Amino acid sequence: MLMRRFIIVGHKVPNDGRFTLNDLAGSAGRVDILCRCINSAFFLSHAMRKEVEVQLVLPAGPDPCTIVRFVGAELRYLNPDERSTAALIRNALLKRPGSAEIPSTPGVYARRGTLAVALESVATKSKIFLLHEDGEDFASVYVSSDPASSMSDDSDSTFLLGDNTDLSPDELETLERFKHKLVSLGSISYHSDHCITYLNLELDRRADMVCKKAPS
Amino acid sequence: MLMRRFIIVGHKVPNDGRFTLNDLAGSAGRVDILCRCINSAFFLSHAMRKEVEVQLVLPAGPDPCTIVRFVGAELRYLNPDERSTAALIRNALLKRPGSAEIPSTPGVYARRGTLAVALESVATKSKIFLLHEDGEDFASVYVSSDPASSMSDDSDSTFLLGDNTDLSPDELETLERFKHKLVSLGSISYHSDHCITYLNLELDRRADMVCKKAPS
Repeated sequence: MLMRRFIIVGHKVPNDGRFTLNDLAGSAGRVDILCRCINSAFFLSHAMRKEVEVQLVLPAGPDPCTIVRFVGAELRYLNPDERSTAALIRNALLKRPGSAEIPSTPGVYARRGTLAVALESVATKSKIFLLHEDGEDFASVYVSSDPASSMSDDSDSTFLLGDNTDLSPDELETLERFKHKLVSLGSISYHSDHCITYLNLELDRRADMVCKKAPS
Repeated sequence: MLMRRFIIVGHKVPNDGRFTLNDLAGSAGRVDILCRCINSAFFLSHAMRKEVEVQLVLPAGPDPCTIVRFVGAELRYLNPDERSTAALIRNALLKRPGSAEIPSTPGVYARRGTLAVALESVATKSKIFLLHEDGEDFASVYVSSDPASSMSDDSDSTFLLGDNTDLSPDELETLERFKHKLVSLGSISYHSDHCITYLNLELDRRADMVCKKAPS
């Protein structure tokens, strides 16, 4: 199965999971943004995207940097509202995992690990794209102008995004160790979850065009 | 200024505003969906879309059908998280307006009114599109294949959507009184907020192409 992967750095989420669900945009360190990214990554109207994987990289402390991984093919108990998604993230963090990944709720895993660990986990099987306003336009970088020839470009891609702040200089330095491209969705700067929604729908539409063009 | 308008029917939100912010996806009648639609309609990364207007049509009772209108050019106190947006909707409903529109927080208005009233308010100045899986494809209906010629099609459009349920037979009958087209975003059925995000970004991208093509 061709995968779509998203890695999102949540710079301020308390990674021991000790935050209240009543203040997601405040003391929970803008975990609301990550919840919306999860929603955008996985939800169809009456189904879940099974071909999607999301890794949330949470460096803020007080614990060592932690990765919460959502696997579309295994996910249960994911609902579209922010609060319930935040509860899934919190439950995973409250497991206080070690460097070995452990399961939380179905389809949600946690481990200690940095952005480098997250990127290493995808680098051999996936192209890596950093979403950034200064990048080349998505349409010209990612997909060729001929839909029929874009199929191979639609294989196993990882999109890396920040939360409400760009990647830090240290994080960009980490990224430099991996082959990657900067891609932009246009001249306007968008919220991360909106970028993910657009990418998902646009890739669906392009795959649809390829299917319709393929000989029957 | 060319406007983008969205009308969303929230079929189950208690329209007297008496709901708790701790159960948006439950007893608040899926107001979480409307909050995400508002977010998708208005938010850029570091700004608000001033050219957007949203009307939420709330027929569920116990009060008569109520319209809460968000005006991008006037909006204040709108934050990206669901909970604070739900508070703005609730505050407007708690005003218990009559048939004349009254202001709530800046850029948010409320009035008693049905879907017909909402459609009447846009019909003379705007084309109306119902987002529906059975519609014609967005790309072929809404925008011509030549970006330069699509500018006029990008003028003052209203997109009508349901929440997590399609429009009812009665609502479709109301819509029949107005000139409109059914448009689809592809063969997959998406959440309403994801449709709005896609439309906004795709229209931005097309407008961008037109600007770049225009003689300098």
